[in-house]
Amino acid sequence: MKPCLVFQSDFTYKEGAVAAMYGVVKLVDPSLEILDLTHEIPQYDIWSASFRLHQVLPFWPKGTIFVSVVDPGVGTARKACVALTQSGHLIVSPDNGALTHIAQFIGLKEVREISPEHRFNSPYKTSVFNGRDIFGYVGALLASGQLKLEQVGPLYGDFKALEIPDPKCEEHKLKGILEIQDPNFGNVWTNIPIRYAHDLDFKVKDKIHCEIFHKGQLKLKQSCIYGATFGEVDLYQPILYCNELECLALALNQDNYAQTYNVGQGPDWTIVLSQESYV
Amino acid sequence: MKPCLVFQSDFTYKEGAVAAMYGVVKLVDPSLEILDLTHEIPQYDIWSASFRLHQVLPFWPKGTIFVSVVDPGVGTARKACVALTQSGHLIVSPDNGALTHIAQFIGLKEVREISPEHRFNSPYKTSVFNGRDIFGYVGALLASGQLKLEQVGPLYGDFKALEIPDPKCEEHKLKGILEIQDPNFGNVWTNIPIRYAHDLDFKVKDKIHCEIFHKGQLKLKQSCIYGATFGEVDLYQPILYCNELECLALALNQDNYAQTYNVGQGPDWTIVLSQESYV
Amino acid sequence: MKPCLVFQSDFTYKEGAVAAMYGVVKLVDPSLEILDLTHEIPQYDIWSASFRLHQVLPFWPKGTIFVSVVDPGVGTARKACVALTQSGHLIVSPDNGALTHIAQFIGLKEVREISPEHRFNSPYKTSVFNGRDIFGYVGALLASGQLKLEQVGPLYGDFKALEIPDPKCEEHKLKGILEIQDPNFGNVWTNIPIRYAHDLDFKVKDKIHCEIFHKGQLKLKQSCIYGATFGEVDLYQPILYCNELECLALALNQDNYAQTYNVGQGPDWTIVLSQESYV
Repeated sequence: MKPCLVFQSDFTYKEGAVAAMYGVVKLVDPSLEILDLTHEIPQYDIWSASFRLHQVLPFWPKGTIFVSVVDPGVGTARKACVALTQSGHLIVSPDNGALTHIAQFIGLKEVREISPEHRFNSPYKTSVFNGRDIFGYVGALLASGQLKLEQVGPLYGDFKALEIPDPKCEEHKLKGILEIQDPNFGNVWTNIPIRYAHDLDFKVKDKIHCEIFHKGQLKLKQSCIYGATFGEVDLYQPILYCNELECLALALNQDNYAQTYNVGQGPDWTIVLSQESYV
Repeated sequence: MKPCLVFQSDFTYKEGAVAAMYGVVKLVDPSLEILDLTHEIPQYDIWSASFRLHQVLPFWPKGTIFVSVVDPGVGTARKACVALTQSGHLIVSPDNGALTHIAQFIGLKEVREISPEHRFNSPYKTSVFNGRDIFGYVGALLASGQLKLEQVGPLYGDFKALEIPDPKCEEHKLKGILEIQDPNFGNVWTNIPIRYAHDLDFKVKDKIHCEIFHKGQLKLKQSCIYGATFGEVDLYQPILYCNELECLALALNQDNYAQTYNVGQGPDWTIVLSQESYV
Repeated sequence: MKPCLVFQSDFTYKEGAVAAMYGVVKLVDPSLEILDLTHEIPQYDIWSASFRLHQVLPFWPKGTIFVSVVDPGVGTARKACVALTQSGHLIVSPDNGALTHIAQFIGLKEVREISPEHRFNSPYKTSVFNGRDIFGYVGALLASGQLKLEQVGPLYGDFKALEIPDPKCEEHKLKGILEIQDPNFGNVWTNIPIRYAHDLDFKVKDKIHCEIFHKGQLKLKQSCIYGATFGEVDLYQPILYCNELECLALALNQDNYAQTYNVGQGPDWTIVLSQESYV
């Protein structure tokens, strides 16, 4: 069975760009199966693109080919690449930082620059739609077996990686960043692994003191319950919990934490957690 | 041919939750086909989840497996279940009221609680993503034939059902609720069957007097034309028509009824209809 | 291999209409593959429906069947039709103008009216959901081979076409319309072919004088750089570029042109372009 193609972009489904990419896949090989990761990455947001690959890739079969097209620099000198992960998945993407989380948390075996000859012979030529003319096309060639990984183009090492500050487990204190939000429910995910909470002996029902900073400035100070699931606190109350990637996260039970407290995401947003008894 | 999996949730496609569920399906069996019912159920809205299953299930082949994950109580004591409908479809869902409409309008042959051993051995453990770790996984096991219905877990009878007030056909009067809205076009669907309108001899072009109440308080009184299709009234004019489930519904021709008149949905919103000649 | 079905509508995924259509397809033939063009055509917007078919159809294999359901006149006298394009694709749609761009840019070999007998025997009857009961159903019958094109119904010639003003290349001046927007990124696409820019010898880095009119009234006058890709201008600066259909288009680098300058789309919005040196 041929591997799946799983697409992500910031194109939305409001116009025809996604369907143009998918048509090209079917032109290459009508038997290929296409699935959506998401086409609602915030516009030009490479950080989110990188994180979403990390969030879902471990749950797909080896050999699955991810095509990620968040590409504010489309047509410029940034490379187009195919990466093979340590886990045996492929990622086809502009090399603009979208490999950051996968490289850090799963590891890359190799990265190749896509050679110019692997370009779809489109009836309409443009420099602004590599998703259709390069990324989706190369993904389809790979999935169909018409192109082998080693034929993609030259290996290289210096792919672009964004900086992710390391979380820290200090005496009575956990430190990290607000790595990403769930833009639907408004939960806020930190990059602090749950094992750090175990190291500090956080227990279900503990009161945790939480401070959130933006560029070093205190934005929010609150106490919240540490629990396993939202229903352990009253409606609309804050909870610190273990998210689906085994990191600490903040939520309001059936309400929107990020909107309510007006907090953002990314390395500029930092968080410090400690048991109330140690504050 | 293996049955399809049809998913619904309140996750949206804004982040990776849907794709994580779908990856797990492909890990179970890459040959399974996945389709979306919707991932835009209003957040935590079990009533809408229940109604949408009712709206679409009769149009799918017997054996189709619906996975519905609107689950505000994820990880709490509410059961995880698989229901077999009288029509021969399967529904995998939290047992929180999501079976209400299907139980009432189609009927359930049996409901089984999902045993704890049917849980995906996820690389990351959490209590807040049963869609990935239980519902999608069990749906995939069933679709692939790796799990038989009778192996899911114990039968039980007292599944949770929300209350749906019965519509009434009285002398010259039809009474019902504003059961659901079309959140896109803004049409408002009642639970009054079209045959009641026939019983009262409503005829195309009849003027119908319509009163809408919220918790017993009159919110809107209007006259509208009874017709078969929107084009029978002028642009932006109200029409009472037979919707796709053979119930009476209200619309403005090419405009949004629900927004224009600021009406909601659910058992608290009631409606009384009668021919103008009887008012 | 059976051809794909590619659907577009203005239904969104907010409720069950799309899934009801797709269920009917699977009832006809469970082996059929369904893909989305988009379900986010602006409500009732036949012009956009027509354009989106034009945008994507050339990128799909011959034989692909497009089902387009933007149908404000559902149930009225407008015809339901199947069109065979010169390129060998099929379009199933209400005949309400949705064939305009395909007829003009690709050409139609034949158009047939769908005979009343090709209607899904739905468990619920209605006049307001031809997407489920006619268009999706007939698309599935055609894709599965159960219905041949010549069995669809009678040929006819006078299908409905909207008017598209021709672009013009005059001495030192290009004239056209703002044909469509990218509702996601806010780029504005004209109907002026890139070859007209070549005819006037526009060169990369040229300053182009741009005037936009609504119903003949000047709405915007600006100078922008002609370039191949967004990165050639500074962030948030305007650029005139060759879009994915080889027409001239306007964008702000990583910003929203249409919103920033408050311009619309369609034949009422006209544009005049000339090199600054000729103004």
